[in-house]
Amino acid sequence: MKIGFIGLGIMGRPMAKNLLKGGYRDLLVCSRTRERVDELVRCGAQAACYETVGRECGVVFTMLPNSPQVKEVMLGAGGVASFMRPGSVFIDMSSIDPTASREIAAQLAQRGVGMLDAPVSGGEPKAIDGTLSFMVGGPQELFERFKPVLETMGSSVIRCGEVGAGNTAKLANQIIVACNIQALAEALTLARRAGVDPGLVLRAVRGGLAGSAVLDAKGPMMLAGDDRPGFKIDLHIKDLANALDCAHSVGAPVPMTAQVLELFQWMRQHGEGEKDHSALVHYYEFLSGGSLTDAQQD
Amino acid sequence: MKIGFIGLGIMGRPMAKNLLKGGYRDLLVCSRTRERVDELVRCGAQAACYETVGRECGVVFTMLPNSPQVKEVMLGAGGVASFMRPGSVFIDMSSIDPTASREIAAQLAQRGVGMLDAPVSGGEPKAIDGTLSFMVGGPQELFERFKPVLETMGSSVIRCGEVGAGNTAKLANQIIVACNIQALAEALTLARRAGVDPGLVLRAVRGGLAGSAVLDAKGPMMLAGDDRPGFKIDLHIKDLANALDCAHSVGAPVPMTAQVLELFQWMRQHGEGEKDHSALVHYYEFLSGGSLTDAQQD
Repeated sequence: MKIGFIGLGIMGRPMAKNLLKGGYRDLLVCSRTRERVDELVRCGAQAACYETVGRECGVVFTMLPNSPQVKEVMLGAGGVASFMRPGSVFIDMSSIDPTASREIAAQLAQRGVGMLDAPVSGGEPKAIDGTLSFMVGGPQELFERFKPVLETMGSSVIRCGEVGAGNTAKLANQIIVACNIQALAEALTLARRAGVDPGLVLRAVRGGLAGSAVLDAKGPMMLAGDDRPGFKIDLHIKDLANALDCAHSVGAPVPMTAQVLELFQWMRQHGEGEKDHSALVHYYEFLSGGSLTDAQQD
Repeated sequence: MKIGFIGLGIMGRPMAKNLLKGGYRDLLVCSRTRERVDELVRCGAQAACYETVGRECGVVFTMLPNSPQVKEVMLGAGGVASFMRPGSVFIDMSSIDPTASREIAAQLAQRGVGMLDAPVSGGEPKAIDGTLSFMVGGPQELFERFKPVLETMGSSVIRCGEVGAGNTAKLANQIIVACNIQALAEALTLARRAGVDPGLVLRAVRGGLAGSAVLDAKGPMMLAGDDRPGFKIDLHIKDLANALDCAHSVGAPVPMTAQVLELFQWMRQHGEGEKDHSALVHYYEFLSGGSLTDAQQD
């Protein structure tokens, strides 16, 4: 089976490489950036245009920033979908609004093309290790058929419901991650201002109920002043805006999500949108003076 | 060395039992509740009054609700401290305001009694397993001398600084735990209202960056409608009030902490103060209608 892969960003590149390593060697890749295509070609993939991908591939994966890009690539003039055969399948691993996932699935269904939405969590490190968590929506039969392919890129592949359920789960994921980052920033800043080494606090609390993947992954970055992405604030703003849209449309209260979105917006206004989302701690450093990095004893 | 142990609540009882199991058999226990003392006596401890504990014990542990109780038991008329010998040590494992820890330490120092503040995280399950996380403040020498004793009750014992630093770390811990609970409640409610099984969402996100001790311990309780404490909302209100006091006195911004405290206060107003802190999800269920328990497919 030929596989198409569109979108070779921070996440897409290592994911496509893991497909190759997993034995899916008949891989056609597309990206607007020539160097990224060349990098995958050196790993064994073939460069291809949308038309070739659409005509030749039994399954097409995308890993793109948001729904406008997915719609453009798939459904725009000369988009991939216009070339896809009935019976072929589209698997969108981008994190987009669940409503957009359902709209795209409905249009593809008219052409006889199936769809799964399969966004991921875990960030670049887990993309590289092939240990991402996939949250999948779509028909059970398609899920079972493509689960082994997804497992070359992820260690957890869970179906949450019909199309859109994957992205709904991803919104839940992004709410938790964002709030956990803010909570960590707030807690470490309090400790620092109270004269206690935030590095020791991090070590002391990590084994208890405060322990989390965010604490383990982002705490050391906050302490080191390392704000290289990782996952950019601009992208987290996109996810939280989608979460608020979804929440308002279904009648779910999200006061904490709304608050952390405001802080991320402030970060973007201050020119930090391209930094890792853990740079949210800069907001607390700005308000309270001083930095976590300077406060450590070692 | 005779050890005194005062406060045999949900946490204190299993912790005292683990001291006995760890080989510290010469244990004198006090509690206002006779049945709790009897339970420990059956395990090998001796019942004692404050005077006996103070006169005979080289080290006295307390595990009490808040600073007024610790001050009353130790420094009140007929309190334990009035009987303690110079060179003996007080180790307070209660979670109290760090300022109160420093006040108590200062008064004990006048009598030649040393002190560590050593609050814990992990809740009843880890108290039973002896895998609590201790956050310790006080002199390095005292810390090293009593670390092996604490290790009979906990698997992580970290010194964060001088007296008060343990409770400052604990405030940081409680901020993170409370915010992570609210984030989880918000995320699962969004998924439920969007028509996606919250149990599947929990499974799908737990392996990624949204994973946390709160998610693993409290998510299943939220899904099952199990709000038995565990850790009571009333006690978490006490900790967050201490966190806000500390934050305001040192100039640390804690907007997210202030918000979750408001929700816990609402829970208490609605008669749920005695429930587990994960019952915060009831606030979201109240606002949005329906329950997580009813929304699962299994």
